[in-house]
Amino acid sequence: MSRSLETPLSKVKRGPNRASYDAVLAFNIIDSALLCHVGQTKEGQVFVTPTCHWRDGDYLYWHGHSKARNVKGPIDQPEKVCINMSLLDGLVMARSAFHHSVNYRSVTLFGVPERIDDREEKLRQFKIFLDKVSPGRWEQLRPVNEQEIKATGLVRIKIEEASVKMRAEPPIDDAEDANWPVWAGVIPLEKTWGQGQQDPIQQEDYNTPTSPDAV
Amino acid sequence: MSRSLETPLSKVKRGPNRASYDAVLAFNIIDSALLCHVGQTKEGQVFVTPTCHWRDGDYLYWHGHSKARNVKGPIDQPEKVCINMSLLDGLVMARSAFHHSVNYRSVTLFGVPERIDDREEKLRQFKIFLDKVSPGRWEQLRPVNEQEIKATGLVRIKIEEASVKMRAEPPIDDAEDANWPVWAGVIPLEKTWGQGQQDPIQQEDYNTPTSPDAV
Repeated sequence: MSRSLETPLSKVKRGPNRASYDAVLAFNIIDSALLCHVGQTKEGQVFVTPTCHWRDGDYLYWHGHSKARNVKGPIDQPEKVCINMSLLDGLVMARSAFHHSVNYRSVTLFGVPERIDDREEKLRQFKIFLDKVSPGRWEQLRPVNEQEIKATGLVRIKIEEASVKMRAEPPIDDAEDANWPVWAGVIPLEKTWGQGQQDPIQQEDYNTPTSPDAV
Repeated sequence: MSRSLETPLSKVKRGPNRASYDAVLAFNIIDSALLCHVGQTKEGQVFVTPTCHWRDGDYLYWHGHSKARNVKGPIDQPEKVCINMSLLDGLVMARSAFHHSVNYRSVTLFGVPERIDDREEKLRQFKIFLDKVSPGRWEQLRPVNEQEIKATGLVRIKIEEASVKMRAEPPIDDAEDANWPVWAGVIPLEKTWGQGQQDPIQQEDYNTPTSPDAV
């Protein structure tokens, strides 16, 4: 067990047997996902926005247009946002409809976003993000220019209030259904990066980039 | 174009060129995804909960333990929730870091959840859900019992206030970068249902169930 991310807010109320607050386990799931969902409010209305995220140490980062809701909103009106990332791993086929489930890995985080304005730190984080998406690619790209750095908003929350929920096991049926005559088990969802589709306007042949470990 | 789901709330502020409000397009994306993210508030704090969803006509449904936050909460304290489902389709590799992107299909919906308590309608909806997960399986299962129907909360929102955002194209680079010497294109994310892993306690051989079209 690494340090605990449990707080009164992050404590899981339903299905606590599938919950964990282990920071390293949360980091692994965060790193395995490309996409998260940021929940925030504006004038009392809740909004959920999908966005790509990355992690550097104890912090979760995301970026976007400097005027985008999930970048500008929580800075203009500071609030504790809720972020969830979920990886669907399989369908759990039980002998009764009621016991059907999914295998998954999920992290829910809470935190007040802070904006990063420092030019060097922004650059450093953008490289960390690109290294998550395609290791080694950053150095091959046309270098970032000042206008791009300025136009891209960068925010982060500290990963200190969070929970993990996950399921990774066969169906759990009622004992009396054990011999019900229907297939029971798990159908895994396989996610793979396919053959790169080169930009049609590109004439030269280059090596396709490295695919990410995350999906 | 089918009917429009545009309202002042669902109108997309950033990247309107990637937005649509076409109901049939939204239905297709909703049906293609198994998992959505429900955003709601409790005492001013936002929560985002992943859950499986299905659709029946103009309504989006989800279910859960009758005391679960995303089932009980919005009924106890009625509010307009925000639900997003996003399918990541590929990585868009551009010639500059700034123009990297993802191909995706995403729907954001708003609505005040209503709970369905009618026994027959609950049963009918649970079958529609299972038919989405594995067509033809419902009839093979141990029939649902009264306690299971009672313990399972069913909620829905009408799909009438929503937006679609999607991207499905090669990178769009600055014109002056067209000949930058690096591979550019799209790396597609392929999702497939793998070989069923039979429950280890099951001795008989049965046909594995039909996999869903949704992922």
